[in-house]
Amino acid sequence: MTEASKQRALVVLSGGQDSTTCLYWAIDRYGADNVGALTFDYGQRHRIELECAADIARAAQVPHVQLPIDTFAALGGNALTDDIDVESEVAEPTGLPNTFVPGRNLVFLTFAAAFAYREGYGTLVTGVAQTDYSGYPDCRQETIDALQKSISLGMEFDVAIETPLMRLTKAETVLLARDVGALDAMALTHTCYNGERPPCGHCPACELRAKGFAEAGIPDPLVERFK
Amino acid sequence: MTEASKQRALVVLSGGQDSTTCLYWAIDRYGADNVGALTFDYGQRHRIELECAADIARAAQVPHVQLPIDTFAALGGNALTDDIDVESEVAEPTGLPNTFVPGRNLVFLTFAAAFAYREGYGTLVTGVAQTDYSGYPDCRQETIDALQKSISLGMEFDVAIETPLMRLTKAETVLLARDVGALDAMALTHTCYNGERPPCGHCPACELRAKGFAEAGIPDPLVERFK
Repeated sequence: MTEASKQRALVVLSGGQDSTTCLYWAIDRYGADNVGALTFDYGQRHRIELECAADIARAAQVPHVQLPIDTFAALGGNALTDDIDVESEVAEPTGLPNTFVPGRNLVFLTFAAAFAYREGYGTLVTGVAQTDYSGYPDCRQETIDALQKSISLGMEFDVAIETPLMRLTKAETVLLARDVGALDAMALTHTCYNGERPPCGHCPACELRAKGFAEAGIPDPLVERFK
Repeated sequence: MTEASKQRALVVLSGGQDSTTCLYWAIDRYGADNVGALTFDYGQRHRIELECAADIARAAQVPHVQLPIDTFAALGGNALTDDIDVESEVAEPTGLPNTFVPGRNLVFLTFAAAFAYREGYGTLVTGVAQTDYSGYPDCRQETIDALQKSISLGMEFDVAIETPLMRLTKAETVLLARDVGALDAMALTHTCYNGERPPCGHCPACELRAKGFAEAGIPDPLVERFK
């Protein structure tokens, strides 16, 4: 492969608020010509996320690839791929939220690195954040650092993993979205755990999002769109 | 989940010589009642490997699960899933053998850990070896150690990863197979890169296997079977 350039960045794009902010952050930092977006179809119940990701990449004018991962669904037993009530937030018997797929981000970033390796992207960008840490150990900086080392050794690929939202509150993420020109694209994102559009407004994800926009003092373009 | 016991071991079983030796090593160490086998269908060209893995687990009388991973085939561009000539051993332009799937073992072990987490296995066993290291950076102990840390942090699951073959030569692996009672099962394994049965005898994998049995002074039960 071409020597992977740290100045070419691949963004793991879920179609949500955080990864969309990261996409525009990367464009702001590296230039649209040096940014690509990668979305995983891992059998998520809310297929709308995949459409949102494609729409967002198109709006941002960056190349977009979708890769399938059928393994999580085969592993089973979690609310994001199975038909389990997400409102009962804590799954027995782990104490973790039942939206937790063990190792999901480890797998996403490892596959993203494999793709980046082939395509000459030296930097990965992911929207994980430990500030609003709610039982997702694979979102912490310490985990990302360990994973970076695994990938670096296992692929002989000294990839950089950027986590621009890691220490931001949701309100700070909204302000960052404004600063990097991502606000318009927020109207294209999907957050609602119940998969509703317009968003339900009362699930934990909708509430967290609304709180962030409210604290930032900025109207949510997604909410405005459906007014 | 139940507290994962280090005395319950999940073996990543490919259907080859090394992972089969590991399966019997695990049975010898933990007892058949505490061992399970996990095989990945990642779109390998030689589907016979999957049948071999199932046959071997059945012969060993341990529970066996097969999980799909459709992502590598979607990533494309490698000889183990695509129709590329494996005899031209070095792929351009990486200098790695063209059988190298970037991060393959990282992904296998991460999914194996996710499965182990759910099923209460505290130990993973993998047949990777760095002695016959031929360009597979994800087979080295250093990589496995880093991955163990990633999984431990990312899943909050302090899994042990056993690599009984790590520092053995192929001949020593054959002697270990004898010592743990795995020789009969060797007749059920698949090694040939060309997917032939009886094995072609002249591909790099067949040659490496034959050399190991010859140096150990033990006839290969797979070869004997087809005499």
